[in-house]
Amino acid sequence: MDAGAALFRTATAAGLEVCFANPGTSELPLVAAMDSAPGMKAILCLFEGVATGAADGYARMKGRPALTLLHTGPGFANGLANLHNANRANSPMVNLVGDQPTWHRKYDPPLHCDIERAIGGWSKWTCYADQPDKVPSDLVRAVEAAMAAPGRSATLIVPLDSMWADVAGPAPAPKLVPPRAVPDDRIEAIAAVLKKAGKAGAMMLEGPAMQEKGLWVAWRIAAATGCRLLADWSTSRLDRGLGVPVADRVPYFPPEAMAFLEGMSDLVMVGSHEPITFFGYREYRSTPAPVACVRHTLAHPNEDLVGAMEAVADLLGAPKKPALPPFPGRPARPTGKIDAQVIGEAIGALLPENAILVDEGVSGGRPSYLATAGAPRHTYLSITGGAIGFGLPCSTGAAVACPDSRVVDVQADGSAMYTVQSLWTQAREGLNVTTVILANQSYAILDIERERGGFPPYGPMARGLTELARPHLDWVALAKGMGVPGKRVTDGEALCKALEESFAEPGPRLIEAVY
Amino acid sequence: MDAGAALFRTATAAGLEVCFANPGTSELPLVAAMDSAPGMKAILCLFEGVATGAADGYARMKGRPALTLLHTGPGFANGLANLHNANRANSPMVNLVGDQPTWHRKYDPPLHCDIERAIGGWSKWTCYADQPDKVPSDLVRAVEAAMAAPGRSATLIVPLDSMWADVAGPAPAPKLVPPRAVPDDRIEAIAAVLKKAGKAGAMMLEGPAMQEKGLWVAWRIAAATGCRLLADWSTSRLDRGLGVPVADRVPYFPPEAMAFLEGMSDLVMVGSHEPITFFGYREYRSTPAPVACVRHTLAHPNEDLVGAMEAVADLLGAPKKPALPPFPGRPARPTGKIDAQVIGEAIGALLPENAILVDEGVSGGRPSYLATAGAPRHTYLSITGGAIGFGLPCSTGAAVACPDSRVVDVQADGSAMYTVQSLWTQAREGLNVTTVILANQSYAILDIERERGGFPPYGPMARGLTELARPHLDWVALAKGMGVPGKRVTDGEALCKALEESFAEPGPRLIEAVY
Repeated sequence: MDAGAALFRTATAAGLEVCFANPGTSELPLVAAMDSAPGMKAILCLFEGVATGAADGYARMKGRPALTLLHTGPGFANGLANLHNANRANSPMVNLVGDQPTWHRKYDPPLHCDIERAIGGWSKWTCYADQPDKVPSDLVRAVEAAMAAPGRSATLIVPLDSMWADVAGPAPAPKLVPPRAVPDDRIEAIAAVLKKAGKAGAMMLEGPAMQEKGLWVAWRIAAATGCRLLADWSTSRLDRGLGVPVADRVPYFPPEAMAFLEGMSDLVMVGSHEPITFFGYREYRSTPAPVACVRHTLAHPNEDLVGAMEAVADLLGAPKKPALPPFPGRPARPTGKIDAQVIGEAIGALLPENAILVDEGVSGGRPSYLATAGAPRHTYLSITGGAIGFGLPCSTGAAVACPDSRVVDVQADGSAMYTVQSLWTQAREGLNVTTVILANQSYAILDIERERGGFPPYGPMARGLTELARPHLDWVALAKGMGVPGKRVTDGEALCKALEESFAEPGPRLIEAVY
Repeated sequence: MDAGAALFRTATAAGLEVCFANPGTSELPLVAAMDSAPGMKAILCLFEGVATGAADGYARMKGRPALTLLHTGPGFANGLANLHNANRANSPMVNLVGDQPTWHRKYDPPLHCDIERAIGGWSKWTCYADQPDKVPSDLVRAVEAAMAAPGRSATLIVPLDSMWADVAGPAPAPKLVPPRAVPDDRIEAIAAVLKKAGKAGAMMLEGPAMQEKGLWVAWRIAAATGCRLLADWSTSRLDRGLGVPVADRVPYFPPEAMAFLEGMSDLVMVGSHEPITFFGYREYRSTPAPVACVRHTLAHPNEDLVGAMEAVADLLGAPKKPALPPFPGRPARPTGKIDAQVIGEAIGALLPENAILVDEGVSGGRPSYLATAGAPRHTYLSITGGAIGFGLPCSTGAAVACPDSRVVDVQADGSAMYTVQSLWTQAREGLNVTTVILANQSYAILDIERERGGFPPYGPMARGLTELARPHLDWVALAKGMGVPGKRVTDGEALCKALEESFAEPGPRLIEAVY
């Protein structure tokens, strides 16, 4: 059997169904084999950062890896920034990267680079598949690596001579290992800590602990002890909205984070790390939790987070399904001139049930997060690694994973430009994504950080590096250029109407919210 | 003095005048210092691949490095693909990459990655500038490394605590070392080889040997011996057109390259390597030159290429300024339906004097190269490393370097999407770039390689990976979205008119040439 066909049949047998692809000549045999595995869907992305970002969004929603198909070293390099975000979200992902035939590498042809070295720091598991008969089993090992808790990126570099080969056939399905159980003594110790700490205790959640089932278990502990449930500002996936126990994100800026965490005596990590400031500041600690707060670990990321919390809850005699406190109401439909607050209120007022709220609002995202606390049940995805250009691709992948949900991307304009090519894939695939561009025509976060950092006002050259207004980015034209219907709005009423229109029809829409 | 101010003043004293920038919070002190060095111009790019590609184009035209300013590891990663192209062109470039304060790194904040490891394989010289008082002299060393023949990329990683520091002042100007002289015995040996080989000899040129002055020296040798003058298909910079001695590029596909090189007995490298096929093919050698052809080296890339050729020419008693053979005439203005040939003829008919012809036509570029052989004197820049997304950024940087020239970018549509953000910078800076989009709505090179590779016709899934027509990419809308006036043309007459209009007015234009 053709190696490419065996590779894709192995993938589908392992439960992989989607390949976000941006292939070149060195991946031609894999392209040609793409139709030989029923159940594998190839989705073309016009830039590799779209492919890796989409695989991240897909994995966050599905809990399973997508394939990416990338064109040698430079193609892989184009995908690194969103691979970084995916790594920080522990998103499982399997990258297929083509390479020159092994015998051609020594001539150092133009596209050649040392892919293994280049990939080293970025992919969390890598295999150079230069033994053709092992390509299918190499893929199985990649899937096993990607799926081992808490999830990671895995990369198979496949030289052309491995793709050209004939092999025996697909490899057997991967052996998936469940996450390790947390030992009893840790469970007992943490139960005692949380009981003693009461309202001064907190659990910092990640991964499965932030999905609906995990949050219910965490809430049992909170109901029994009074502890707070926290999530990192940079969080991979948080289920929330009406009827879902609340874990609240630590704010971005150090003073707000410190105030938020004040008075905390004990902080228990559940697959997470303690809050760390996003950047290092001269005037603030890197760790905004109180110095005197004791740090504990219930579960490491590769352990059974939800099982561990269940054991703690049972040990504490926590109620099985404690009542939830009342949720805030939805905001009224906003009126008047648009700003980040108005955008937040409009989304808060209108977000449909089971939506996926993707937040790359950067300086303007927080109001949308806060205003959706009382919205119907939804899932919140945020940028985990700070590598901007995350929102559009992540939305693309999330929409592929959940075709019955509406994805709403609260999207800073500057960041959107990095991976703007995503809109084309959204149009081609008819994905249910509403992109709300926060068109403030600036890298506003830099101006905010400048003021907070006590820098003097910029000179003209510096100011030019944070302004996007000269020339005006016309988002409706950009969207049209890639086949996505767009609308420019300047007040809350028009924004609400545009949101409702986008929710009523299938397929992608873009709303340029000017402020 | 503020470290940032000292850094930029050191840069201007070293002859660096431009900084292609895409900064973030970890580069804020450098942004704030941007106005403190008169003579330094900051140019905002909306994606890092634009910045590195522009620095490449700038260096190819100026022979001097530009600075880039990039946002930590993921920002640097976004610039890697065009850094790869720049490396393959031996373009001098100095990258400034911000990083967390050194004391914050141990907390592994979201954006953190091991930048030195990540940069390792891609940047050809790297320094982690964690001693604040040495930041200015570190920059000087970076410039020295970048400028040492034949030129290379150099990267200074500057942690925030180095940017915050006060330092004594700027560092003294770099000591630039001229390229090494080629020893006499090699010159004598090569003169004898070329004399004996006659018309069966060839010189393969790179770097300064392909600029006008170098070509005249090479032409002296050709006039004396009958040898051919060759350039690689992937060539960094080739001066050509009326009145410039001709070096002809080796074709891309192996059979054409083999036919082109047939009968060659001796191939002399002048700062180059021998022709290598772009990809490895089962049915062709990696080295299309005849097996029996003897490979010689006159000069390595770090040696004085033009001086060595002068010595050979003098030894051969070559005429000082031999007459040039007649140039082909310019093609007639084409009419009728557009294809790559019509685009080539239109550019060949109309290219202005001293233009810069940037070729990222991929499958459709060669007719434009061939049809401009008799155009007025111009400079030809092509993609050296095969990392697509090169043309728009390179054109941007070349236009910054040469404001009095018109840049004409023959630009494949699929490749253009990778770094489409370049158009915004062209609009902001009012750059004289005419982008001609070869809008064939496909990754046509993949279809050509499929046919040549003997693959059967694609199934529907595979076909979807090479078609860009669903949805149609509307280039006029995309250009409008970034402030560049655009026009769609479908026949030769309209294309010629649009080209003439774009040459008559300053500033950028985009022409979507549909075929």
